[in-house]
Amino acid sequence: MAKIMAINAGSSSLKFQLLNMPEEEVITKGLVERIGLDGPKITIEVDGEKVSETTPIPDHSAAVKKLLEGLTAHRIIESLDEINGIGHRVVHGGEKFSDSVLIEEEVLKGIEEVSELAPLHNPANIIGIKAFKEILPNVPSVAVFDTAFHQTMPKEKYLYSVPYEYYEKYGIRKYGFHGTSHKYVGQRAAELMEQPQKDLKIISCHIGNGASITAIDGGKSVDTSMGFTPLAGVTMGTRTGNVDPALIPFLMEKTGQTAEEIISVFNKESGMLGLSEFSSDLRDIEEHAKEGDEKAQTALDIYTTRIHKYIGAYAASMNGLDAIVFTAGVGENSLTIREKVCKGLEFMGVQFDEKKNDIRGEEAFINKEGSPVNVLIVPTNEEVMIARDTLRLG
Amino acid sequence: MAKIMAINAGSSSLKFQLLNMPEEEVITKGLVERIGLDGPKITIEVDGEKVSETTPIPDHSAAVKKLLEGLTAHRIIESLDEINGIGHRVVHGGEKFSDSVLIEEEVLKGIEEVSELAPLHNPANIIGIKAFKEILPNVPSVAVFDTAFHQTMPKEKYLYSVPYEYYEKYGIRKYGFHGTSHKYVGQRAAELMEQPQKDLKIISCHIGNGASITAIDGGKSVDTSMGFTPLAGVTMGTRTGNVDPALIPFLMEKTGQTAEEIISVFNKESGMLGLSEFSSDLRDIEEHAKEGDEKAQTALDIYTTRIHKYIGAYAASMNGLDAIVFTAGVGENSLTIREKVCKGLEFMGVQFDEKKNDIRGEEAFINKEGSPVNVLIVPTNEEVMIARDTLRLG
Repeated sequence: MAKIMAINAGSSSLKFQLLNMPEEEVITKGLVERIGLDGPKITIEVDGEKVSETTPIPDHSAAVKKLLEGLTAHRIIESLDEINGIGHRVVHGGEKFSDSVLIEEEVLKGIEEVSELAPLHNPANIIGIKAFKEILPNVPSVAVFDTAFHQTMPKEKYLYSVPYEYYEKYGIRKYGFHGTSHKYVGQRAAELMEQPQKDLKIISCHIGNGASITAIDGGKSVDTSMGFTPLAGVTMGTRTGNVDPALIPFLMEKTGQTAEEIISVFNKESGMLGLSEFSSDLRDIEEHAKEGDEKAQTALDIYTTRIHKYIGAYAASMNGLDAIVFTAGVGENSLTIREKVCKGLEFMGVQFDEKKNDIRGEEAFINKEGSPVNVLIVPTNEEVMIARDTLRLG
Repeated sequence: MAKIMAINAGSSSLKFQLLNMPEEEVITKGLVERIGLDGPKITIEVDGEKVSETTPIPDHSAAVKKLLEGLTAHRIIESLDEINGIGHRVVHGGEKFSDSVLIEEEVLKGIEEVSELAPLHNPANIIGIKAFKEILPNVPSVAVFDTAFHQTMPKEKYLYSVPYEYYEKYGIRKYGFHGTSHKYVGQRAAELMEQPQKDLKIISCHIGNGASITAIDGGKSVDTSMGFTPLAGVTMGTRTGNVDPALIPFLMEKTGQTAEEIISVFNKESGMLGLSEFSSDLRDIEEHAKEGDEKAQTALDIYTTRIHKYIGAYAASMNGLDAIVFTAGVGENSLTIREKVCKGLEFMGVQFDEKKNDIRGEEAFINKEGSPVNVLIVPTNEEVMIARDTLRLG
């Protein structure tokens, strides 16, 4: 039996979960917030209760120290020696990393090299890795990449139709994200269907504030909706998803903004927020739509039609479909979105069950009995994937 | 019986066709090239032979004069009075024009107003209209818009997930192009299938050097792959189709180019040309691929997989499919492309017939007997559509 920490480090935050492996039991979880900012705070779950403390946390090293002190202080573990491995979520692995990897000096360099592809995320992930290395130098640590699962995409799916040298010189291609989540729900769906995943064609819909759709054929990602960055694909909470790229110079001229600024609008002020003009949160938008708000209704229609079309496209890519899986905040909890996405796919064997759909945040089949295509809800669990890979490689 | 001219005016060219209507017989056709440039040339078909003349043509008025003189000089018509109507192709009708329209002062203003949406095309179309008005002031002229057929798209299909005010202030939305062609082949496919178009779900693939895919439900365009501009959608001869918009600032930094310049690369040096690194012409690329050129093969795979995915997406949009129609240069002539696009759609009832596919440039069914989905080749005919609308409205 091993105790594994699963870590997700942001630029001013650090999420953690401690798991017993291979049992996959969560021992505790928590969050360090506002690292290096005003009012830093650490929260740890103790016996199912959240215990918070506001205390100076100038940097990630201090955050890691506080967190480890908290674990022993609350007697969650007796000694730091009990921690057998640390798994770190890393956003971008570029083409270098097609699987999780034990972190050694070379690997850290590799993660740094691909940082220009994820300038907001990889540097923060690296700070997290280094902070743990400093304090627990002898505990093996493993990097688990958001992009790795998608490295099985064939060339015709990951290349853009731009001059080929852009790929060779600058690494411009589709990478895809949310890979750890898509991999998890794909595996779990196969287990629930009691069929070997190698025989299954699955489309997984990870739809939260960010959202991506993945075609998983025989357990491998063969296409995904996010692209070079997480901006591409379907409509999201605040992101546009796909738009005509010619909008950018047109908007630059109209608004006087730079290309960077337009992309920032596309990332932060678009999607459901931009369309509804009041919220990026699907729950708010569903509520307003029910009350007759036309823009909210249109935003919902846009959100669901984009996912609906991706399901058609990916079924075509795989020449068939065995299951659609919904996960993440919206996917696990929004009855409306799931129904609107699945209705109108009867022609390809999707028989959606509105009654079974009346469920939130639990594993469930929501297709009619005998539907040729299964429809499932599978709550995602990236931490367990991180812990599994850490156990395997650590 | 009426004689109708169908005109397609570019910035330095003028294509024309003279038709007997309603018989839809082509009397003659031709082209004025290099208007206002060195070495202008006019070509008219006389008794099936092309007759060319190099002569000074300083502007579009001169081009129209030359063309009309040619028609009488070659005794194609006895007098200009025989011309009963002139139909002009106009690229962009914005949201103003959802059908062809008789050109009056107000209409010309309207076409000018939407010119900023098609700054390379509408001004040239307007010059063509004015040149004919000047010389044949009493002949009714009609504008036929490339965008009009797509004005039936529902809001959730034509709006981008950008801040809503971009739509209200700047008219940013999906317009779609090739509408006259999609409309023609949709109608013709229904005739060939001997079914009323109102009962049919059709996906039309207009694939030439430019390419767009349209979902036609009950005779109405309900979605199309081009967008705010003709850059969006599938991979084309020299255009990217959809890419992650975040590529633009990234490439600006890497290459030192402006956003305008990047979009110009995306329009003119990308697509099949950018991927193959030697040609935008599918015939060249197919040949090289056969000889084992890997990049040419990848380019073909990319080209076809994008169309394949759109067919899946649009079938999902319509909850079913009755026919796929191929048209334009590549669609009418490339056996390879048609086969690669249609293979792998068996799950949704597409039974492609390789033997029947051995045909070029002719109306034909290329699906297996009893295939739930028909697959057709229908050579496009925008001129006849222009002439029909001119007869109807002129």
